[in-house]
Amino acid sequence: MGASQTIEKDYAEYCCWLQYERNPKVKRAFFTNINVSEYSKTDVTQTAVEELYRGLSAIVGTPPAINQRQTSAIVLATINSPELPAEIDVAKLSSQLNEEGFCIRMDNKEECLYLIGKTDKGILYAVFHLLRMLQTGTNINMETIENPTNEFRMINHWDNMDGSIERGYAGNSIFYKDDQILADSERIKDYARLLASVGINAIAVNNVNVHKTETKLITDQYLPEVAKLASVFRKYGIKTFLSINFASPMELGGLPTADPLNPQVQNWWKEKAQEIYNEIADFGGFLIKADSEHRPGPFTYNRNHADGANMLAEALQPFGGIVIWRCFVYNCLQDWRDRKTDRARAAYDHFRPLNGMFLDNVILQIKNGPMDFQVREPVSPLFGAMPDTNQMLEFQITQEYTGQQKHVCYLVPQWKEVLDFDTYAKGQESFVKRSVDGSLYGNKHGGITAVANIGDNWNWTGHTLAQANLYGYGRLAWNPDYSEEMITEEWVAQTFGTDEAVMLQVCDMLRKSWSIYEAYTSPLGVGWMVNPGHHYGPNIDGYEYSVWGTYHFADCNGIGVNRTAKDGTGYTSQYFKENYKLYESMETCPDELLLFFHHVPYKHVLQSGETVIQHIYNTHFEGVEQVERLMQDWQKLKGKINEERFTGVLHRLSVQLSDAKEWRDIVNSYFFRKSGIGDNKHRTIY
Amino acid sequence: MGASQTIEKDYAEYCCWLQYERNPKVKRAFFTNINVSEYSKTDVTQTAVEELYRGLSAIVGTPPAINQRQTSAIVLATINSPELPAEIDVAKLSSQLNEEGFCIRMDNKEECLYLIGKTDKGILYAVFHLLRMLQTGTNINMETIENPTNEFRMINHWDNMDGSIERGYAGNSIFYKDDQILADSERIKDYARLLASVGINAIAVNNVNVHKTETKLITDQYLPEVAKLASVFRKYGIKTFLSINFASPMELGGLPTADPLNPQVQNWWKEKAQEIYNEIADFGGFLIKADSEHRPGPFTYNRNHADGANMLAEALQPFGGIVIWRCFVYNCLQDWRDRKTDRARAAYDHFRPLNGMFLDNVILQIKNGPMDFQVREPVSPLFGAMPDTNQMLEFQITQEYTGQQKHVCYLVPQWKEVLDFDTYAKGQESFVKRSVDGSLYGNKHGGITAVANIGDNWNWTGHTLAQANLYGYGRLAWNPDYSEEMITEEWVAQTFGTDEAVMLQVCDMLRKSWSIYEAYTSPLGVGWMVNPGHHYGPNIDGYEYSVWGTYHFADCNGIGVNRTAKDGTGYTSQYFKENYKLYESMETCPDELLLFFHHVPYKHVLQSGETVIQHIYNTHFEGVEQVERLMQDWQKLKGKINEERFTGVLHRLSVQLSDAKEWRDIVNSYFFRKSGIGDNKHRTIY
Repeated sequence: MGASQTIEKDYAEYCCWLQYERNPKVKRAFFTNINVSEYSKTDVTQTAVEELYRGLSAIVGTPPAINQRQTSAIVLATINSPELPAEIDVAKLSSQLNEEGFCIRMDNKEECLYLIGKTDKGILYAVFHLLRMLQTGTNINMETIENPTNEFRMINHWDNMDGSIERGYAGNSIFYKDDQILADSERIKDYARLLASVGINAIAVNNVNVHKTETKLITDQYLPEVAKLASVFRKYGIKTFLSINFASPMELGGLPTADPLNPQVQNWWKEKAQEIYNEIADFGGFLIKADSEHRPGPFTYNRNHADGANMLAEALQPFGGIVIWRCFVYNCLQDWRDRKTDRARAAYDHFRPLNGMFLDNVILQIKNGPMDFQVREPVSPLFGAMPDTNQMLEFQITQEYTGQQKHVCYLVPQWKEVLDFDTYAKGQESFVKRSVDGSLYGNKHGGITAVANIGDNWNWTGHTLAQANLYGYGRLAWNPDYSEEMITEEWVAQTFGTDEAVMLQVCDMLRKSWSIYEAYTSPLGVGWMVNPGHHYGPNIDGYEYSVWGTYHFADCNGIGVNRTAKDGTGYTSQYFKENYKLYESMETCPDELLLFFHHVPYKHVLQSGETVIQHIYNTHFEGVEQVERLMQDWQKLKGKINEERFTGVLHRLSVQLSDAKEWRDIVNSYFFRKSGIGDNKHRTIY
Repeated sequence: MGASQTIEKDYAEYCCWLQYERNPKVKRAFFTNINVSEYSKTDVTQTAVEELYRGLSAIVGTPPAINQRQTSAIVLATINSPELPAEIDVAKLSSQLNEEGFCIRMDNKEECLYLIGKTDKGILYAVFHLLRMLQTGTNINMETIENPTNEFRMINHWDNMDGSIERGYAGNSIFYKDDQILADSERIKDYARLLASVGINAIAVNNVNVHKTETKLITDQYLPEVAKLASVFRKYGIKTFLSINFASPMELGGLPTADPLNPQVQNWWKEKAQEIYNEIADFGGFLIKADSEHRPGPFTYNRNHADGANMLAEALQPFGGIVIWRCFVYNCLQDWRDRKTDRARAAYDHFRPLNGMFLDNVILQIKNGPMDFQVREPVSPLFGAMPDTNQMLEFQITQEYTGQQKHVCYLVPQWKEVLDFDTYAKGQESFVKRSVDGSLYGNKHGGITAVANIGDNWNWTGHTLAQANLYGYGRLAWNPDYSEEMITEEWVAQTFGTDEAVMLQVCDMLRKSWSIYEAYTSPLGVGWMVNPGHHYGPNIDGYEYSVWGTYHFADCNGIGVNRTAKDGTGYTSQYFKENYKLYESMETCPDELLLFFHHVPYKHVLQSGETVIQHIYNTHFEGVEQVERLMQDWQKLKGKINEERFTGVLHRLSVQLSDAKEWRDIVNSYFFRKSGIGDNKHRTIY
């Protein structure tokens, strides 16, 4: 990889999962030659060749010949290329592949290995898939067919042009510094490689909170540099999107309004779209946070979100552009005294009535849960609830509420739960993943996006183990049916090698980490309890008397938010019947979400058989013990992992341990002092 | 006044209490002439003439003649001037005046009015005193003699050179901008006038937290500009001090240590002192915050505070300089789980054992209370406890914990309580004021200092009514025996005129304001309960699980800190016997400090007859009602106070009201939720 820094740092760590180690077992003849179909030559195919060349050179030990037309070669070709042998049933294969799918196939004599894409992107993905198989020691079958499940597999960057990253925990932006775009940076290309290798095909390169300078990204002051950025990503099959300011017609255009029904405003956006597409012919489109947390939006003009989104969609439509409209809309000036208003209801209440009113190049982007990326919250009831509207799921890779990359918190298990959640929107098996990939209702567009967790730290993510979240996200976005086990093992093998002890240990640590983090932080789905603003560290009442709609209502008798239809906020009724019933009843509501849905006495007995208060004490003591074991487990790997990564992770584990103790003691003390109920195991509470 | 801004703003507001209004009643002949004793001419006398000229011109309506030697004149003279008439018994008067005292005296024929100082400073103070009498309509007696009680009447500025002010609530610094000293600013001169008019004679011009740039104030990079600043203040009788960085020999001098017993370090400071006095011959000396809140100090070298202070004192001694050493030293990395450590004990524990070990040009600067400028805390037990050591009292005019100049909180009543507190150090009437003025033990030096509340806001203090705190502080520092009533009336008369309705109303508002603020904030002396960092607004557990040593220990049964000798932290035993007994017993401990000294059940009955919990509810409901009445009272003044000040104060009162409601509801809800005990008047608690 072309990192510009001259370093003594661990290069492997910089490469993340794209470390290619010499492997003597990789020795078939076709690995020594790469042939590219003349018919299929594009910039992306060229990238595929470069990546394959680089990977094979390292793994095989000698660089492959390119286009020397040997009998035995890896052949890169799109599906209609004349080079494909007759034995391949092109018509059949074509029906098996979607636009970005690929097939890896040996000819019958096993002389050539064909990497076939329906498009050039498919070829690129096939290359990375092949390299992944070589890295992980996976056998190459006669035929492997892979199709991405989701049309959009996206990354959102909350990067600001001053170089800061909102909710970034791994240094500064790799895209911006001092209000300039670092378009020539090698690091951006290296990042594009990482993304493409896991199948990411879209990126929004600036913060959804679009500040003054970033508003100008769509002007000629910055567009040429944005175009350069886009061309870096384009070579890796990634489309560039920009987050835009809904008030741009006023701030940039000098118009007196940004009313989406005003013809001048509409026209301003149409001309703006033309201007953008003149610079970037395949520009992806706009990502918009409107009428949320003090951002401007259509509400100012008594218009609704459909009015706002459709106006932009009309402007982008002639160019094939997409409007991604965020549903993270709620009253962020709530009165904490008001127990009727429920922030959890907000997205559904705002958007559900607009079903079918959005143009078909609009996609609604919905956070996984109704609140905000907590360690545990239920799935947003909006998924599946808008049959005639494109939906996209938003995850957060950056660990805002899950340890800020100081704590290990591997999120793939959480994401799997969300994707596999059955909404019952169209009866059983109406999984979230089927709602967002468009298959449930046959929507035109769909996909998954996530907030990036990288910055300019040498290892990209601060915590080495947080690289696994970026990797796992990409793999899941490609195919939500992939198992957590497979993804985790892939990542560990590519990152630390295939030593069995290392594999077992690291996989085990990752798999446990989410539930460990949950154990010592806020209990039973109630969420928050963090310091306001930066969101790090325990503060039980931190958001209790605030405007943010995030409360636990703990008093001397009990805790939790009554969101039932019976006598609470009615949030439960936003779910389809099966889930509504599940959550509405205190008896069937899953323990881990009990306090999200119900206000219960501390002595309420959980399905687990423990009381709520004793559960709080138990999990908080155990959570810390589990972190202690994580440290012990990691220490066993000394010598099996190179020193820099070993000590780096060990240091962060020690921070995690110390902070977990703060969480434990503060949470336990808070509830002991409040409830007056002691721990039945008589452990120390202050 | 020479404000450089061209404004339409209320000039009176900028002038604070130095507004001089035409008063036709001021018409005696001697007001038309000013004669200055040739013998007494100095820069300060010249300032006195200018001030008198300016004041009389405005009040009388025509400028007085100067040095025209008319029969009838105001005569400015030091005590040995030949101009004094024979009828004045100079020897007697001399014995009645201290260095900065003055006498205002009419000759027997009432033709001349003599403003006599023992020194030129006395003349200046006499002028301001005369003008104050004219402004407030006070009769001029045949003879008025005034002596400042305190040698040092000081102001501490927590201004940083980037222009920010730590704990400043009235804009940016008037001294600094962008790391430069604004020595030529007219505003600084206007500030010096305000200070001199109330008798301030010393100023520390930079933050006690001395950062990197400010460390260089004692280098040739900045000293010439500091000298300019000093010369502005010098003309008004004010000596300039600098806060210094104890690690300067390392940071500036390149030495490997700042050990106070190291001869190289000692020498470095001696040379530095010489360098400073070369620039500023009457430089006041150093103010030092050492070994406190991460500031460097002698502890690093296993030396004590006396070692540190004496080293600096030796360096300054040849030039008559003073070392002011702050006693605000405590463990700011306390473990909240540890109930044995008590921050309140810290100053006494650190400094009491060093009694008699400090050189006589060292003064220990002690905050009024043992914690940190809370709305209510007991008086520091260190006062009177170090007979052989100079002590200085530190107040905080800037309203860090008392409403940040958004809330009215007139602090003179609080300061009076502190000054009049009987320490019993030498039996009855060993008042704090007598300890710090040096009279209790005959100490060489003493005084009072306070953290400034001004910034570059047009009206200096943000809240117009906060001007009263600066005024009142100066007057009390001059003479702690002045009554609150007198000071308040003086300020109101000079600020808003002598209209009786205005006088009564504003005085009443000011007098009540401290207890109103106390009513709706943290109860019964327990303190804190604010948002960490900026210290504004309610956050009951804000400092409860933190490192700062500031806890209330509220649980479902009770609240408060047990600081008794019997079974608490033993803090009570730091007081002399009478106070120790008073505070040690729950029965005699004053209600308003009960939770500072004792942990009690919510149903504990106060001396007032109310339970603690009911007291909390009552005061919080009543506090808000009182703020509502403050608003109503202020509104009655519409038309009697000019519009800008009227609406400015009204706006701030509305902020105060809204914030007081937050305080009320959050405090009440917190304790209701925690205790489960309802309000016996059934008012709304959430």
